[in-house]
Amino acid sequence: MTPEDFRKAGHALIDWIADYRQRIAELPVRAQVEPGEVRAALPAAPPAEADQFSALLADLDRVIVPGVTQVQHPMHFGWFPANASLASVLGDIASSGMGTLGISWESCPSLTELEEVMCDWMRQLTGLSDAWHGTIHDTASTACVTAMILARERASRLSKNGAGLQAVAAPLTVYSTAQAHSSIAKAVQLAGFGNDNLRFIEEDPYTRAMQPQALALAIEQDLAAGHIPAAIVCSVGATGTTAMDPVEAIATIASRHGIWLHVDAAMAGSAMLLPECRHLWQGVEQADSLAWNPHKWMGTILDTALFYVRDVPFLERVMSTNPAYLRSAADGQVTQYRDWGIPLGRRFRALKLWFHLRLDGIEAILARLRRDLENARWFAEQVAAAPDWEVLAPVPLQTVCIRHVPKDALGKPLAGEALDKHTLGWLGRINTSGAAFMSPTVLDGRWVVRVSIGVEDTTREHVERLWELLQLAAGQD
Amino acid sequence: MTPEDFRKAGHALIDWIADYRQRIAELPVRAQVEPGEVRAALPAAPPAEADQFSALLADLDRVIVPGVTQVQHPMHFGWFPANASLASVLGDIASSGMGTLGISWESCPSLTELEEVMCDWMRQLTGLSDAWHGTIHDTASTACVTAMILARERASRLSKNGAGLQAVAAPLTVYSTAQAHSSIAKAVQLAGFGNDNLRFIEEDPYTRAMQPQALALAIEQDLAAGHIPAAIVCSVGATGTTAMDPVEAIATIASRHGIWLHVDAAMAGSAMLLPECRHLWQGVEQADSLAWNPHKWMGTILDTALFYVRDVPFLERVMSTNPAYLRSAADGQVTQYRDWGIPLGRRFRALKLWFHLRLDGIEAILARLRRDLENARWFAEQVAAAPDWEVLAPVPLQTVCIRHVPKDALGKPLAGEALDKHTLGWLGRINTSGAAFMSPTVLDGRWVVRVSIGVEDTTREHVERLWELLQLAAGQD
Repeated sequence: MTPEDFRKAGHALIDWIADYRQRIAELPVRAQVEPGEVRAALPAAPPAEADQFSALLADLDRVIVPGVTQVQHPMHFGWFPANASLASVLGDIASSGMGTLGISWESCPSLTELEEVMCDWMRQLTGLSDAWHGTIHDTASTACVTAMILARERASRLSKNGAGLQAVAAPLTVYSTAQAHSSIAKAVQLAGFGNDNLRFIEEDPYTRAMQPQALALAIEQDLAAGHIPAAIVCSVGATGTTAMDPVEAIATIASRHGIWLHVDAAMAGSAMLLPECRHLWQGVEQADSLAWNPHKWMGTILDTALFYVRDVPFLERVMSTNPAYLRSAADGQVTQYRDWGIPLGRRFRALKLWFHLRLDGIEAILARLRRDLENARWFAEQVAAAPDWEVLAPVPLQTVCIRHVPKDALGKPLAGEALDKHTLGWLGRINTSGAAFMSPTVLDGRWVVRVSIGVEDTTREHVERLWELLQLAAGQD
Repeated sequence: MTPEDFRKAGHALIDWIADYRQRIAELPVRAQVEPGEVRAALPAAPPAEADQFSALLADLDRVIVPGVTQVQHPMHFGWFPANASLASVLGDIASSGMGTLGISWESCPSLTELEEVMCDWMRQLTGLSDAWHGTIHDTASTACVTAMILARERASRLSKNGAGLQAVAAPLTVYSTAQAHSSIAKAVQLAGFGNDNLRFIEEDPYTRAMQPQALALAIEQDLAAGHIPAAIVCSVGATGTTAMDPVEAIATIASRHGIWLHVDAAMAGSAMLLPECRHLWQGVEQADSLAWNPHKWMGTILDTALFYVRDVPFLERVMSTNPAYLRSAADGQVTQYRDWGIPLGRRFRALKLWFHLRLDGIEAILARLRRDLENARWFAEQVAAAPDWEVLAPVPLQTVCIRHVPKDALGKPLAGEALDKHTLGWLGRINTSGAAFMSPTVLDGRWVVRVSIGVEDTTREHVERLWELLQLAAGQD
């Protein structure tokens, strides 16, 4: 395709995207397709002939869009806000259009240095000290695998350079809570620790935050058993209920024993842009690594996951390679981000952050986050005040965990399996209708509905409409 | 940013990209900046106020472009062709614009099912049997880490679910050659094997391909020592010289011992689109996993790394999580790509492949690959026939490793340190000039220059011009 063909098609595509975003509120929130339906609409074999751009654009509408769950829809309250602000989309388009290659500083100095500067801007914007140095990963899951490998290598004294984890005599152990994101257990397994060496520490029964005394005890027990405590993963805003592990108390325990402390603030990191929320990760300066995703609530399009460490030389010792075919005269004077993570090649991700911060401006981003906090507070108040409705966890940020508990004919509140059936019933009716979307989770063995507020276009009006829908749907049983 | 603001800025950006690509041949190939120069041109602190799009566009030209090494430039012969075809760029723009979220089938059925279909189209286009099932990773490095974890878990009987790698009594060993990409050794280390357990098998001194007899011997020795051979990484087109390990002979050894065989065809996979090249990976059907990057020579913009396995249930057993907050009614009927790799969230990467294949058409892609093979053959012939020039390795594809070996005053060919100085001298002069770019590598302890042919815009004329430049620069010493 020539640049002139691209110009023509590109203009058509920009219009298509602008129209799409303009009419997004008219689309059903959840994709309306059955398993296999999109696949069945596509040819089983690759086309022999080249096609017109107009045909492809028509297929986007015909085949792809019906199979998209509209997470940019103002009535999307599922999983987490996965905002893809149009300002950041422009940065992503610039990245795609330039077609740069990030495998070393030399392959694209701008890519490396803009990433350094953007990570530093974000550090400043979240009130972190300049002891932290950052990079952009694809996701917090990958950041967590990296953190677990760093922890393993610190505890095993760089066993990777010798006989490996197998040669370490005593088992290495990791500590978290059952509320921690599923990627934590996955990372522990992928890094080779083994699931038996992952300890889920007791939580506070209401806040679901890690109990530091229980952590201290578990570590003491492991030490007494001859184990080597290697890592603690502290969740700042755990996935289910936005539970906030007490970072400071945990960090004190971690540093007492020289244990690697990873702070997972994937969703809640966005809140740290607001000075009034930073008490929620008080103590973070004592952690060893920290990850959070601007591609969630803040709205820099996926994949933008920040990963910060304090000990860069150690990070590089664990992750570096220095192959001959990538050596250049600049070695030693520059950052080589290939030595900060798993993949060698990287996209020009920093452009997304640069465009987002410059075009939307930080004040507008902060105002939007505050709006969402207000909306969540309002919504939680409505639910708490309504008969038969419950708010099941604290609401430190923008996620509200709720349940409708109607009474049966004898005036007894629904419970057990019957309650689960009721919960999934009304949730399913709303999700299937396409009018709004929420995702459930399990608390204390029972389904609850998570209402995650914070899509860029979600105003108070949409939250009010959701509350009406909820009451209507729950009353239909 | 509203959709209308986006529309306006988007049109300006499309024009900027089209202009940029049109004038790319006029830009210096290698970035002309010094370490720190891009960073110094950016404010140290984030801006307080929102900015105009025009200001950002001007800064792209002023700050970013001078710091880009132009890998889309027709005179780029460095590292590998990192083609970002404009057809695939359009697919990437569609992905960015829609702002979808890939964390489960339900979060975007189209994303999952188009990825399934595109991996299957690519499977057919490279002549693989339908025993293979694919996914798109960011890079072949990540695919290799995944493969090493799969190998570890097969050899250790899913130790991740129990006491971990540490509880496996005998050391697990991995086999490759010193020619293998640096990501192989990195993956072995990250997966916890330890570098001592990575065996570099003897290579053929000229083709630099793994010697199967040496592999068989090394495995026998490890078995005799009580070790557990866990993985073999077979390079189809190793980075330095495009060395081709003999897949079939290696696969026979692997299957005899039940060792996981990973085929790394990151660069050379593109050649498998050409039926006449497929003999180069004869035996691949017996491998366990396979990775190659359409984002290299084929030209589907980064990040598009295909990862195929044959045993999907095993892959899912190793990589899966099933957290409550991601469960849905479709579970069990659909593919959950989060269980096929490390990250939970993914971009809508399949659109890049779909747009590329449909808009450029496979015939045009094949013709371009054949053009590059012809150009490499022609170039190697010129070099081999010229006095004082050497081609240092076979040229199975599009990479030619060369050296200029002038004679000193006594008629003795330059050697040792003096030869290295000469090689890096003329290479540096060309790279610094911006007229062309190549990257060096080390063979038998001495620097050689890799000429990697295959940028989309590189015609015979550009290769001829390069050959003139080379002779001129090498003669200046």
